[in-house]
Amino acid sequence: MWVQRRVELKAKPKGFHLVTEEISLQLPELARLSVGVAHLFLQHTSASLSLNENVDPAVRGDMETYFNRLAPENAPYFEHVEEGPDDMPAHLKSVILGSGLTVPVRDGQLQLGTWQGIYLGEHRNRDAGRVVVVTLYGEPA
Amino acid sequence: MWVQRRVELKAKPKGFHLVTEEISLQLPELARLSVGVAHLFLQHTSASLSLNENVDPAVRGDMETYFNRLAPENAPYFEHVEEGPDDMPAHLKSVILGSGLTVPVRDGQLQLGTWQGIYLGEHRNRDAGRVVVVTLYGEPA
Amino acid sequence: MWVQRRVELKAKPKGFHLVTEEISLQLPELARLSVGVAHLFLQHTSASLSLNENVDPAVRGDMETYFNRLAPENAPYFEHVEEGPDDMPAHLKSVILGSGLTVPVRDGQLQLGTWQGIYLGEHRNRDAGRVVVVTLYGEPA
Repeated sequence: MWVQRRVELKAKPKGFHLVTEEISLQLPELARLSVGVAHLFLQHTSASLSLNENVDPAVRGDMETYFNRLAPENAPYFEHVEEGPDDMPAHLKSVILGSGLTVPVRDGQLQLGTWQGIYLGEHRNRDAGRVVVVTLYGEPA
Repeated sequence: MWVQRRVELKAKPKGFHLVTEEISLQLPELARLSVGVAHLFLQHTSASLSLNENVDPAVRGDMETYFNRLAPENAPYFEHVEEGPDDMPAHLKSVILGSGLTVPVRDGQLQLGTWQGIYLGEHRNRDAGRVVVVTLYGEPA
Repeated sequence: MWVQRRVELKAKPKGFHLVTEEISLQLPELARLSVGVAHLFLQHTSASLSLNENVDPAVRGDMETYFNRLAPENAPYFEHVEEGPDDMPAHLKSVILGSGLTVPVRDGQLQLGTWQGIYLGEHRNRDAGRVVVVTLYGEPA
């Protein structure tokens, strides 16, 4: 069984956002998969997908503060500056955190750990939606 | 052919550990795969899986020192501090290094390069085991 | 449909290089895949694969400058130094950026976003080629 579809994520402010439910609600075909995997692929170079703690919103806040320091705006050596001060840091955060995730599936459910959630890292100040290409494959129920 | 199983890794001290053998010894089904992939997925947000040099233990030591500096304990701006000083740095290391790996398989063997090994990054001081959900799929021999 | 093959990348100087075309030209079987994924796996621990902006070469230059600062040569605590000052930084860049990528495929084409390209990060000064094990799988056209 192979299903591939575009999942659209609503525009979000710069920062980290828990999107497990926003994504899985758009994947009714998950329920038909007995054993398999879900591959999530962000078609952007200034946002990221990662897995992190799904309860305390302070983790998302601390992530944002940390990565803003790790890849700060206006580094004096940046040459790619035409698209604004948040652009090159966004490219750096995207490659450090990654823009794809593979998650195991069993009995129609993503096999995330108890405390794991999917984070969208929105690294631009531009208030636009994001597209995730989701590929589900495995054995049908 | 689809096989999905929980692999348990024994508790390890904080640091980086070579676990290629500990994982593959728990995967007898690998031998039945002619061409395919193995997907390893850590169900935790304070540990990591990565691929690195499999000979010199000094690489693991240098990794630990480097990442302890890259994501130090007690950053003054951390708000997620209830679970101890090693907790938020562990979440940061987990997202920077990643918690999943996909490895090609051929003739019943992981197709790692000559110098590649699988590292478990244990980022907490708590001496607990870790669970990896392994999904093997491909063409049987 | 399962295809697995070694793709060889020509030797490149230290830095980030756009290799989307160098890789896809070596994958004639892509054209036969209706829906599926391509998994790219670098069999090395001192190079990386990532996805980033495919137009402005200044992004590749800024990436190189940034990562040379993030993982600098000659850190006083490095113990793994026998293979030269660029070796331990190369291992660090490889784990931060990652050495594998999974890309969705549809109608015989990698489903990269408009601005996404595949970067090889060559992190050594040694002018040697690199091997990528590519596994293509999915439904044939």
